[in-house]
Amino acid sequence: MKNLYIGIDIGGTNTIVGFITSNGNFLSEHRISTKGHKSFDDFLLQIKTLITEKFEPYLDEYQIIAIGAGAPNGNYYKGTIEDAPNLEWKGKLEFSRKFSDLMQLPVVLTNDANAAAIGEMLFGNAKGMKNFIMITLGTGLGSGLVANGELIYGHDGFAGELGHTIVNSQGRYCGCGRRGCLETYVSATGIKRTVYKILADRLEESVLRAIPFDGLTAKNITEAAQAGDKVAILSFEYTGQILGEKLADAVAHTSPEAIFLFGGLAKAGKYIFEPTIRHFEQSLLPIYRNKIKILPSGLMDQNVAVLGAASLAIKEFSI
Amino acid sequence: MKNLYIGIDIGGTNTIVGFITSNGNFLSEHRISTKGHKSFDDFLLQIKTLITEKFEPYLDEYQIIAIGAGAPNGNYYKGTIEDAPNLEWKGKLEFSRKFSDLMQLPVVLTNDANAAAIGEMLFGNAKGMKNFIMITLGTGLGSGLVANGELIYGHDGFAGELGHTIVNSQGRYCGCGRRGCLETYVSATGIKRTVYKILADRLEESVLRAIPFDGLTAKNITEAAQAGDKVAILSFEYTGQILGEKLADAVAHTSPEAIFLFGGLAKAGKYIFEPTIRHFEQSLLPIYRNKIKILPSGLMDQNVAVLGAASLAIKEFSI
Repeated sequence: MKNLYIGIDIGGTNTIVGFITSNGNFLSEHRISTKGHKSFDDFLLQIKTLITEKFEPYLDEYQIIAIGAGAPNGNYYKGTIEDAPNLEWKGKLEFSRKFSDLMQLPVVLTNDANAAAIGEMLFGNAKGMKNFIMITLGTGLGSGLVANGELIYGHDGFAGELGHTIVNSQGRYCGCGRRGCLETYVSATGIKRTVYKILADRLEESVLRAIPFDGLTAKNITEAAQAGDKVAILSFEYTGQILGEKLADAVAHTSPEAIFLFGGLAKAGKYIFEPTIRHFEQSLLPIYRNKIKILPSGLMDQNVAVLGAASLAIKEFSI
Repeated sequence: MKNLYIGIDIGGTNTIVGFITSNGNFLSEHRISTKGHKSFDDFLLQIKTLITEKFEPYLDEYQIIAIGAGAPNGNYYKGTIEDAPNLEWKGKLEFSRKFSDLMQLPVVLTNDANAAAIGEMLFGNAKGMKNFIMITLGTGLGSGLVANGELIYGHDGFAGELGHTIVNSQGRYCGCGRRGCLETYVSATGIKRTVYKILADRLEESVLRAIPFDGLTAKNITEAAQAGDKVAILSFEYTGQILGEKLADAVAHTSPEAIFLFGGLAKAGKYIFEPTIRHFEQSLLPIYRNKIKILPSGLMDQNVAVLGAASLAIKEFSI
């Protein structure tokens, strides 16, 4: 029997379940809606049903060793999901204990960016690195910090919230209730806000003037930049400046070997990497200059949330 | 024979050598000038001579197990002191290797704030804590970050330079060549600069108007605040606001259980702690609020640089 690990990515809309081998290969991937269940317990039961049904073809060849899950506000120490802003259930949800009872398997939980960091360490570009930072650029900005070869969970299990470090305390409103958080500038949503600010401030023609805010994506902005659109290029410059400056601050905390960028915005390639790296180097304390790499994630076209969650299970329960 | 450890604090002006027991007690403390030696090698020879001479009374009772040293830009991994701005010798100084050859003993090196963090963990208020931050407030602002029970040295051995995170990139000039570093606002020197800014901006009478910049100390400012001096109180408020806001950012990196403040400025007690804690709590991401302690160091009246350096030796070479 070969060993199989399950990775679960619990998102606000969908929950994705992946069957993943010890080498990080996906056997298959399945999804159910996170919404519309009678209760949290019922939701867990539905995941179990899905797993049982989809695992049938593999029963003779594989045994499930452990389950890893990533969720917003997922607490590694307690196995709880705590007041996740985009889930229907409020308060502390006892995910790991309940799901472990249900599945009769070890279950481990963290947030999606921490899971992504472990995925990068086991199967991506951070293989063999003991000190690095993973940045996931999606609707928000998630991060996972690895030091001395271990993920930093912190005292309460919630370390690595670089998306909520402050760029400007009088700046943009953030979903967390404060103002000026990094993710209001640097994320797929953040660069949209920047495009709209630049469209408001400046006079240049731009294809982006034809797209409503709700229809705008990081992909639109990248394509506009590729076509030489001034507003798009300025938006990447502004985003890269803020990201570069805040990553320089992050370096003064943990002094990593490399910083990996993952997600839609990171797919913009040179448009985001070039200004980020330029402002990063300018902003670094001299002893850190010209030695820290800012690189794309090695897992860019994979479902890193699911792979990362499974990686956590592989890391903790490999036999 | 009882075990003895040597802690060495290499400062710009003086170098202090302490004989310290496994329990963190000082047997004795000695100093030589860091300046005016023919060469770095000659300086090391002088330290050896001092140790040999001063150790004589303890020869029958104690054996020296290991030596720990703290120095500006001290590199833990390489044992080198690299381009320390306030030392006479430039480039990379091979401290640990050379001094270990000379003494025929294990030698370990780090910077003074990292050493202080280890001292706090072994003998101060961080006993038993696995996640905390140590802040030393002297001429500059030093820091040591502990996560998962280990000091974070980072890939290059230079992690934990919170004094050089950026408050305002158009702000005060810093000795590092950049502008707006945290230590230009929050340190014994930083609060002096703030006092002078407030004296320039405002009209209030103040005892501090009689003191020249070079004569002003954190102690003067504290005494003025105790006497109700408005300028002094406003200076602590401003310092506490900036420190509180930047510590909230630090929490978003490593999520510590506690943050310890050490040094002359920390001795101002409520004048510095009250505004720092108030702005810290206001600035924290909601999930971190009301659970992270900001406390005075437990080693406040000791020579923490020497004790910390010895603590590093105790941690690494206790037998």
